Amino acid sequence: MTSAGAEFELIERIRARAPGRADVILGIGDDAALLQVPAGHELVLSTDTLVAGVHFPDGSAAADIGWKALAVNLSDLAAMAATPAWVTLALTLPEADADWLDAFLDGFCELADEHAVALVGGDTTRGPLSITIAAHGLVPAGQALRRDGAGANDDIWVTGTLGDAAGGLRQWRAGGIQSAKLRHRLDRPTPRVAAGVALRGLASAAIDLSDGLAGDLAHVLRRSGVGAELELGRLPTSRTLAEHFADEAERWRLQLGGGDDYELCFSAPPANALAIEQALAACELPATVIGRITAEPGLRLLAPDGTPFPADFGSFEHFGAGHA
Amino acid sequence: MTSAGAEFELIERIRARAPGRADVILGIGDDAALLQVPAGHELVLSTDTLVAGVHFPDGSAAADIGWKALAVNLSDLAAMAATPAWVTLALTLPEADADWLDAFLDGFCELADEHAVALVGGDTTRGPLSITIAAHGLVPAGQALRRDGAGANDDIWVTGTLGDAAGGLRQWRAGGIQSAKLRHRLDRPTPRVAAGVALRGLASAAIDLSDGLAGDLAHVLRRSGVGAELELGRLPTSRTLAEHFADEAERWRLQLGGGDDYELCFSAPPANALAIEQALAACELPATVIGRITAEPGLRLLAPDGTPFPADFGSFEHFGAGHA
Repeated sequence: MTSAGAEFELIERIRARAPGRADVILGIGDDAALLQVPAGHELVLSTDTLVAGVHFPDGSAAADIGWKALAVNLSDLAAMAATPAWVTLALTLPEADADWLDAFLDGFCELADEHAVALVGGDTTRGPLSITIAAHGLVPAGQALRRDGAGANDDIWVTGTLGDAAGGLRQWRAGGIQSAKLRHRLDRPTPRVAAGVALRGLASAAIDLSDGLAGDLAHVLRRSGVGAELELGRLPTSRTLAEHFADEAERWRLQLGGGDDYELCFSAPPANALAIEQALAACELPATVIGRITAEPGLRLLAPDGTPFPADFGSFEHFGAGHA
Repeated sequence: MTSAGAEFELIERIRARAPGRADVILGIGDDAALLQVPAGHELVLSTDTLVAGVHFPDGSAAADIGWKALAVNLSDLAAMAATPAWVTLALTLPEADADWLDAFLDGFCELADEHAVALVGGDTTRGPLSITIAAHGLVPAGQALRRDGAGANDDIWVTGTLGDAAGGLRQWRAGGIQSAKLRHRLDRPTPRVAAGVALRGLASAAIDLSDGLAGDLAHVLRRSGVGAELELGRLPTSRTLAEHFADEAERWRLQLGGGDDYELCFSAPPANALAIEQALAACELPATVIGRITAEPGLRLLAPDGTPFPADFGSFEHFGAGHA
């Protein structure tokens, strides 16, 4: 049995701050929301749950949790080349803590406002802290990027830099010197929404990097019925990561298996390379070719001297979990 | 850190059994689902979380939990007069228990098949048992039933019978003689989807009864800026409830505050009464006028002899929680 009064007070706090949109006919406050999907568009729908101690370190700032819970969902929409539109928020909280909720909404709304996302439904329940968001985006019919379109000889690209969040997590766990920049990448990932939209018609397949490059790319390869060769010397690396993790092989492990990057990994025919560079330059987001798709299945990792790097590069190190 | 292998195995089990639909362009297995909203329709979106020990008794059968998790969400769509279409399922499980999941999916899929609902996305995480579903329905533009349309002198109706689930819950808590029929109403609520659709154009406002008639009707009254008078002698009562709870006043308390009925409560101009009876007869669902909307705000409860029944009829007794 729950305390109905406290629940309703939390919902009112959420409702009062819920960002809106013109295509929301009816938002929070009824049995369901009413939404207008524009003609000629498909609805893109993703859901992700974040659990305390599993997907973010216990003791994370509430504002960071609010940001990240939304970010990981918008990242899924970005990987489909969708424009985010509406989200629902299901919050399970150990107690009706209005201060915590306000801080959570600070982070959540900051990112929602950036992408003009409306919060159209919510549910608060009592229990161990977890957040489930269902994110809804829109894409012109037939223009979504999927995982199953990669073809042999396509280039493999990633946006931004890889391994920063994993480096931040490893430092936090070790309890020694910690880089604020790396930790920021762990706590406040940037969903690559503009990049996803810019890649419509250019990329052949895409996925967002939540569980680590090697594992996530493997999903694309399996769905597309192809393989890949990655050149580890090309993995885009931030100056900060290189400073804090001087050993190259250790960095590659963070970049391949670390997860929590929320960059986009996509494939594209080499003929599209110039157009892709221009499209992403317009988003002010660098992207790097890190390998190519092969007809032969499996993932092959090559060190800069051309020798194979062991595919068994160590266990996954991240707070992510599988989702479908 | 989660066991990625176990997570993916669970997702595969869900994916293998996920019911589909023709308007699902892309279901489980990518970053997001792709869905086709038909022209001239609005998207209706609701989300609800069920937490073990809060929304269902600890030790409930997995199949019942699977049924109920979907039922409470479809009930929200029914209250909007929407036809259910697609759902996402976010499952947090203490351990990767394939047998439990299979039984959960038995109950879930049984109800999903009944309503031709497609499961288009999922997320499994490790943690204390909870289930969040986001339910998506469709309604012809402008025909959704809302909470804010009740007008003075409208009849107040409810479908089915009230208080059965609350009676089952009270018996379970008392640990004595238990009616299988009442318990079934608690564990396997029937979302009144066909009735909601049948009420398009006839009802002026609607809500589903999850938290108890008095509290849920109060939402309609507040949103519509009206009040209501209920005649307790008219509350529809099952023979089983009357047998197990002989005291009239005790029954009224269960029916007013009990919750978990998942019947529809709706208002309608008296001129629509005959059309409503015919429309609901076609759904084989009885409905009863239990009072009327008043211009004067507040909820007044009248015993059969015309005397006021105390509005403070006891604490809410249900497993439900507030949602927006």
